[in-house]
Amino acid sequence: MLNYLSCSQEELLKEKAVLEKTYQDYVSQHLKLDMSRGKPAGSQLDLNNDILNTLETYITEDGTDARNYGILDGIPEAKNLFSDLLGIPTEKMIIGGNSSLNLMYDNFVRLMLFGSQGNTPWCKLDKIKFLCPSPGYDRHFAICEDLGVEMIMVPMKEDGPDMDYVESLVAKDESIKGIWCVPLYSNPQGVCYSDAVVERLASMKTAAKDFRIFWDNAYGVHHIYEEHTLKDIFEATKAAGNEDRVYYFFSTSKITFPGAGVALIASSESNIAEIKKHMTVQTIGHDKINQLRTVNYFKTADGIRAHMKKLADELRPKFDVVLNTLERELAGTGLLTWAKPDGGYFVAVDTLEGCAKATVALAKDAGVVLTGAGATYPYKNDPQDRNIRIAPSYPTLEELTKAIELFCVCVKLAGVNKLLEDKVDEEEAI
Amino acid sequence: MLNYLSCSQEELLKEKAVLEKTYQDYVSQHLKLDMSRGKPAGSQLDLNNDILNTLETYITEDGTDARNYGILDGIPEAKNLFSDLLGIPTEKMIIGGNSSLNLMYDNFVRLMLFGSQGNTPWCKLDKIKFLCPSPGYDRHFAICEDLGVEMIMVPMKEDGPDMDYVESLVAKDESIKGIWCVPLYSNPQGVCYSDAVVERLASMKTAAKDFRIFWDNAYGVHHIYEEHTLKDIFEATKAAGNEDRVYYFFSTSKITFPGAGVALIASSESNIAEIKKHMTVQTIGHDKINQLRTVNYFKTADGIRAHMKKLADELRPKFDVVLNTLERELAGTGLLTWAKPDGGYFVAVDTLEGCAKATVALAKDAGVVLTGAGATYPYKNDPQDRNIRIAPSYPTLEELTKAIELFCVCVKLAGVNKLLEDKVDEEEAI
Repeated sequence: MLNYLSCSQEELLKEKAVLEKTYQDYVSQHLKLDMSRGKPAGSQLDLNNDILNTLETYITEDGTDARNYGILDGIPEAKNLFSDLLGIPTEKMIIGGNSSLNLMYDNFVRLMLFGSQGNTPWCKLDKIKFLCPSPGYDRHFAICEDLGVEMIMVPMKEDGPDMDYVESLVAKDESIKGIWCVPLYSNPQGVCYSDAVVERLASMKTAAKDFRIFWDNAYGVHHIYEEHTLKDIFEATKAAGNEDRVYYFFSTSKITFPGAGVALIASSESNIAEIKKHMTVQTIGHDKINQLRTVNYFKTADGIRAHMKKLADELRPKFDVVLNTLERELAGTGLLTWAKPDGGYFVAVDTLEGCAKATVALAKDAGVVLTGAGATYPYKNDPQDRNIRIAPSYPTLEELTKAIELFCVCVKLAGVNKLLEDKVDEEEAI
Repeated sequence: MLNYLSCSQEELLKEKAVLEKTYQDYVSQHLKLDMSRGKPAGSQLDLNNDILNTLETYITEDGTDARNYGILDGIPEAKNLFSDLLGIPTEKMIIGGNSSLNLMYDNFVRLMLFGSQGNTPWCKLDKIKFLCPSPGYDRHFAICEDLGVEMIMVPMKEDGPDMDYVESLVAKDESIKGIWCVPLYSNPQGVCYSDAVVERLASMKTAAKDFRIFWDNAYGVHHIYEEHTLKDIFEATKAAGNEDRVYYFFSTSKITFPGAGVALIASSESNIAEIKKHMTVQTIGHDKINQLRTVNYFKTADGIRAHMKKLADELRPKFDVVLNTLERELAGTGLLTWAKPDGGYFVAVDTLEGCAKATVALAKDAGVVLTGAGATYPYKNDPQDRNIRIAPSYPTLEELTKAIELFCVCVKLAGVNKLLEDKVDEEEAI
């Protein structure tokens, strides 16, 4: 494989000509593919269709008519199902509507307006800040931006956020009120937090008394290759005497239907009591019929796990195509680095510095829409312009194969252009 | 009919003895009835069960897969259905989740945190106040209480809030930021706002530039006897140049299922743009499958209207029982006043001053739970302790008959006790 970093200007110019021709061939194919979001493909959703016809009864275990008003925090059988699946006691849990993002946003809003456990509401403070391990999930960052919360970028390492840096920040700055975490198969890199990282997050000393971890376990059962496990954050915070520190989020959006699943929030019992106090004013209750549908469809936690294996079988060939094509086309070129994720929904790659935007723009001009470059960083600002999130789930295998081949051409072309620019700069500097 | 107000002490004592015996007969029956909330009965919900099996497709009119992510503001066919039903242009509308209360709460929260149309966020102001026509809906008042908004009671008249009073308040106090309205078959009195009231609300001068009407048209198609219509508030605010003044709410909670219906918020296009800006951060989208179910079930606005006639046929006998029993047992006694509602979910009554709490307590001790006395006023404080909300929908006709007969006994007993106390006070005062 040609290592572009050691090429001469002449070699690069030759390579550029070849790449531009290949790129134009793709342009002339008028591709139209959206790989911008982590959306399941229709074929994957088809595997869940039976849930729409699965309702056996509308009376819940405790005798409630699920069609009617009543039950703020979720029907008992739904709580039990997710308790078994995630190892969270039902007392720590509220089942919400169809969106865990909605639960996160509303929870952040409550902290802004009311504060937690007697601490000052965050909106009454001059400034509050949140730690954003990056690359990370753009919708988390958007919540901070919407609510006027300053974001501090924290580098991601192979086993989670850079904890030395996190600990040093939170120890001294009481305006740092929390951290966003996707602890298993993180969005976008697929990083799985090590036990040590979970323990340090749970036990670290924070200047803010009301420091909060938003623990978005979005991919908690979304294994694709090797199955990873996650240390129980509630046990860790309990052991450290920080029981109120964590809000845990989960949903079936990528288990059943993204538009019509069931979401949950879990926290300490005293935090849950606090949430319910306001939630009971906000709504009489979430959609209990849909909770029943979910329980009737899966029956047990093992039912969900078995279903996730089917979904993994659907997703794995797509991840294979992405990873194999990257390996074949770009390993050893010096133009791209990436790590193989074992689950989740994304493959994150890093281009040469200053090449992510150009690569995404080239792909877009050839009809393949990727997640915007920079989106994985706070304020959409990737300081090195390197990270790109590839979402393999939505296209068909055939479409994906073509799209990722085009992507590799774009990486090379943007990389070669950058290397040529650098050579010009070097000459001018002489 | 005995007019208790003109009875002597002796007559009252005699009557009291009879009433206490009758009351004890009810107590010994160990009734257990909940008439506290406006919940549809199971038999009424049974009329909607087909909606659970009605889904014809999961692809929406515009080709979106309703199972997947996408569409923040509602599927086009749902917007069209409610646009036809309510006469609201689709551009002014967002279809939400299962709860209009949730849309109201979230909308209030946005006004607190972000303000509207460039005005100061309400949480940044020292104090804000809201007008609460009373008796009114306790959950509206709870939102104000939760968010720390001072409530000002406004008397209800036969055709809506006392507009002279409303206009005099809002003209001079810019901390008054809005008013709660249930404009058709109001909760609890069944008051229908006249055209003049709607026009005055739409056009009145307000000291606050960002004065907002929360227009909760909860019973917009919930006719029981004579059908009333409601003047179009959007046309009225447009004519008056106050297009941003109104947020309109509606839901199918009492059309299909209270726990699993579809809700909407409507407002000026510029307010809707403002809402979407934040809502797109809060959620990727609401449950589109349930929106499709609703459309597939009703097909057209006329389909909803025909369905509402069936529900009215189910509810009318219950309202008949309440109204006929009150008439038979209490007309001319001087102990209770009420107005016949033509729609909605409640019959509101007024006892003698200082008798509502005692009446509700007597009913409770005999096993019939009514809405708490005072609940229909801000801070749960009915200054005259007179108003009681009767919710006839949930019990069976048989249960209701018994419950309302007991209720009449409680009204009389509490009334007689009060009149006897007054006589003692009079004597002591001599």
